[in-house]
Amino acid sequence: MTSLPKRIHIVEEGPREGFQIEKGPIATARKIELIDALSKTGLDRIQIVSFVDPRRVPGMADAEDVVRGITPQPGVAYTGLWLNDRGFERAVATKRLDIRGNIVLCGSETFLKRNQNRTCAEQLAAQEMLVQRYQALGYKVERGLIMASFGCNFEGDIPVARIVDLAGQILALAERHGVELDYLSLADTMAWATPEAIRRLVGAVRERYPEVALALHLHDTRGMGIANAYAGIEMGIAHFDSAVAGLGGCPFAGHAAAAGNVCTEDLVFMCNEMGIETGIDLEALIECARLAEDVVGHPLPGSVMKGGSLKPLRTRAAKAA
Amino acid sequence: MTSLPKRIHIVEEGPREGFQIEKGPIATARKIELIDALSKTGLDRIQIVSFVDPRRVPGMADAEDVVRGITPQPGVAYTGLWLNDRGFERAVATKRLDIRGNIVLCGSETFLKRNQNRTCAEQLAAQEMLVQRYQALGYKVERGLIMASFGCNFEGDIPVARIVDLAGQILALAERHGVELDYLSLADTMAWATPEAIRRLVGAVRERYPEVALALHLHDTRGMGIANAYAGIEMGIAHFDSAVAGLGGCPFAGHAAAAGNVCTEDLVFMCNEMGIETGIDLEALIECARLAEDVVGHPLPGSVMKGGSLKPLRTRAAKAA
Repeated sequence: MTSLPKRIHIVEEGPREGFQIEKGPIATARKIELIDALSKTGLDRIQIVSFVDPRRVPGMADAEDVVRGITPQPGVAYTGLWLNDRGFERAVATKRLDIRGNIVLCGSETFLKRNQNRTCAEQLAAQEMLVQRYQALGYKVERGLIMASFGCNFEGDIPVARIVDLAGQILALAERHGVELDYLSLADTMAWATPEAIRRLVGAVRERYPEVALALHLHDTRGMGIANAYAGIEMGIAHFDSAVAGLGGCPFAGHAAAAGNVCTEDLVFMCNEMGIETGIDLEALIECARLAEDVVGHPLPGSVMKGGSLKPLRTRAAKAA
Repeated sequence: MTSLPKRIHIVEEGPREGFQIEKGPIATARKIELIDALSKTGLDRIQIVSFVDPRRVPGMADAEDVVRGITPQPGVAYTGLWLNDRGFERAVATKRLDIRGNIVLCGSETFLKRNQNRTCAEQLAAQEMLVQRYQALGYKVERGLIMASFGCNFEGDIPVARIVDLAGQILALAERHGVELDYLSLADTMAWATPEAIRRLVGAVRERYPEVALALHLHDTRGMGIANAYAGIEMGIAHFDSAVAGLGGCPFAGHAAAAGNVCTEDLVFMCNEMGIETGIDLEALIECARLAEDVVGHPLPGSVMKGGSLKPLRTRAAKAA
């Protein structure tokens, strides 16, 4: 069994995940308030906006204003998401974001077709072009990512061998361009993963590519998020994406409290209790989660923000003893 | 590493956990409706009521009416909870419940004092008397249980050695009376457990008493319920208590969606995906969870009831392929 990592790095994606999915309009100033609060918790990387078509995602129409409005904290990288050249150009034009490239493939051709209107071969070719573009502009290509690594609502279970193959395609592409990826992220885009599936896939990818650091991007739609993260941590995974308060996309509209991404403060709580460092102040993060609920105007799925951490209880118990 | 259990047995405690904590009055007929629905899912043991002082727990004032009203299914054991002689007598008087004895100790003297106004020594003596009473009346003493096995809001972290010692006290008491316990349950009464703590405590108790089957009673107040169950399953634990839809006690009033017990259908979903049998029909259980929300009149924390299982998605994908 792999030993537990001593330190886990978390990329906070709550603002981007949350604001793009929320139905109600959220004032730009409130988005900025949450991002500024998050940037004082010890998080060192926060994805704050996506540059997408405002007609399709009205909640991100103010992306530039949000980027302009934040008060950058030293040591915090603020990032954005883009899906095409236009989005990439908008991100660059802000001049305030940390621009790094990804190489993104997908475990499900059907999903890819629906989301980006590309076949797997077209996606690979597009990544090849993107990498060249990033490099020409002097931006680091940092991460590989495989969407729908565990299952797909349209194709069902995704074979482990296919993901191992896609990992190989990403690594080969990186090598062709002299890119050294920091890590390769397995994304459970449609919340099909369970802890044993995490063990299986991580084990298979690692066996084939033992030198590659892996990351997990998890969704909590079926309540498996934290258990999946735990299974990943047990396998030695030290990179996670997560969202404060569990902000984020859930296709099951009409249920305001339905889950999105795995919840940052619940993950940090678990890490703390396991003696794993995150560099994040849990109590400050819990305050951010409560602020996030206030900003979106409805309950969010995070648990520790409601149940509280154990720190105040330990302090009280120590005083009483 | 212990191999995973092939089959997991789940005791459903949702009706008892839920109805005793809900603020609003729930019609007796609706309680019965939920219990009758649960008894058709493959669950073979359901704790449906507690016999407690109706002035303290008004939601259980109709316990006898609930027991009288259900339509017992063959193969399903319906149980109740009692905390004292009066409650025990009420349970027996219904003549419809499956009466089995527990030996209950507690990891926290402070909690015990607050809840039952007893010291640990007094609790042990009371259990001695109870076992004799159960035996005199011909009831099986089935289970040992240690409350606050992981931590206590008043005493803080509970040392592993103390729980191992309490396990020894329970087993010695059982032996003195010729009782063969089916299993020993470690209860995370105040939701202090995290997966690593599960591994530590289960490992320590098992090392000392390798012949004893262990069970876990988990709460989800800090979002660790399913991850804790997974850690337990990894350690070979095959007995769990849980509550449909995550019904159950949460002291953080004012937040209707705050979590109670670990959620039965989320646990069954994880087991299914791990290839572990539970004997429970997940789709029928999800319907019960939705019924439970309707019965209590507000959202409940279960995830799979909102996100859905993977079965319909797999069926659709297979048809499309």
